Amino acid sequence: MIALDPIGFVRSPRNDQRDDDWGAVVARIELADGFGPESLDGLDEFSHAEVLFMFDRVADAAIERGARHPRGNPAWPKVGIFAQRGKNRPNRIGSTIVRIKKRTGRVLEVEGLDAIDGTPVVDIKPVMTEFLPREPVRQPSWSHELMRDYWRLERR
Amino acid sequence: MIALDPIGFVRSPRNDQRDDDWGAVVARIELADGFGPESLDGLDEFSHAEVLFMFDRVADAAIERGARHPRGNPAWPKVGIFAQRGKNRPNRIGSTIVRIKKRTGRVLEVEGLDAIDGTPVVDIKPVMTEFLPREPVRQPSWSHELMRDYWRLERR
Repeated sequence: MIALDPIGFVRSPRNDQRDDDWGAVVARIELADGFGPESLDGLDEFSHAEVLFMFDRVADAAIERGARHPRGNPAWPKVGIFAQRGKNRPNRIGSTIVRIKKRTGRVLEVEGLDAIDGTPVVDIKPVMTEFLPREPVRQPSWSHELMRDYWRLERR
Repeated sequence: MIALDPIGFVRSPRNDQRDDDWGAVVARIELADGFGPESLDGLDEFSHAEVLFMFDRVADAAIERGARHPRGNPAWPKVGIFAQRGKNRPNRIGSTIVRIKKRTGRVLEVEGLDAIDGTPVVDIKPVMTEFLPREPVRQPSWSHELMRDYWRLERR
């Protein structure tokens, strides 16, 4: 068993678990007690950060350990939980690349973080091109369909 | 406090903690007990996967919670631990995009996984272009220098 402590928490206008429309969401990550502002020094020299966070609202009984249709959609193939990025996954870890807007003291303002208000953050890493795919990316068509409206700019 | 269980373990020819030369390393991820092969179904339709793993060999006393020079190199600026990707970080989580070579039952063979033999894996996610940066990536020059030999093909 592995024990983690939150290094911060998400403050976001989004607090519903809707799947889509995350593109225009601006959120803040506020560091947890015990982390000073220096732990974020230099992060704003990067355009993007990778945020690791917990899908802490997912109940134990909802965790999928085998295969399922993504979003329960029978039009898409039944694939393993490790072949999809949904939240009902073992260990409940989310990982998202966000745009860094601003760092102010112990607060990081980001755009495109698909985590709801109050979400525990367990790591922040700078995005380096060397850690992105160095060859063309291939993926099945269902995954493009699933992502079609994910980053859509929300109209209220 | 958040509790995780390994979903698998790395089997790799690399068991030293050297920083560089990870490009040609072929490793296997073997699923932990309790995970059947169906949890990986469909993953080989993707060219790349994101592997989340634990830097479990890092001692508590070695964890940096503030700022430091990356790799202890005074030629590079002192930056916060969340502005670097080094292993001596709070929660000890590593995140690397690898090339998927082959899936055989409960074993995933990958290329470019910078984790040593025996490393616990806590998640595997498929790489979708929609989750990669959708704008140009900007990063400081020290990070390019640090990464220069990281993926170098090892000559033995």
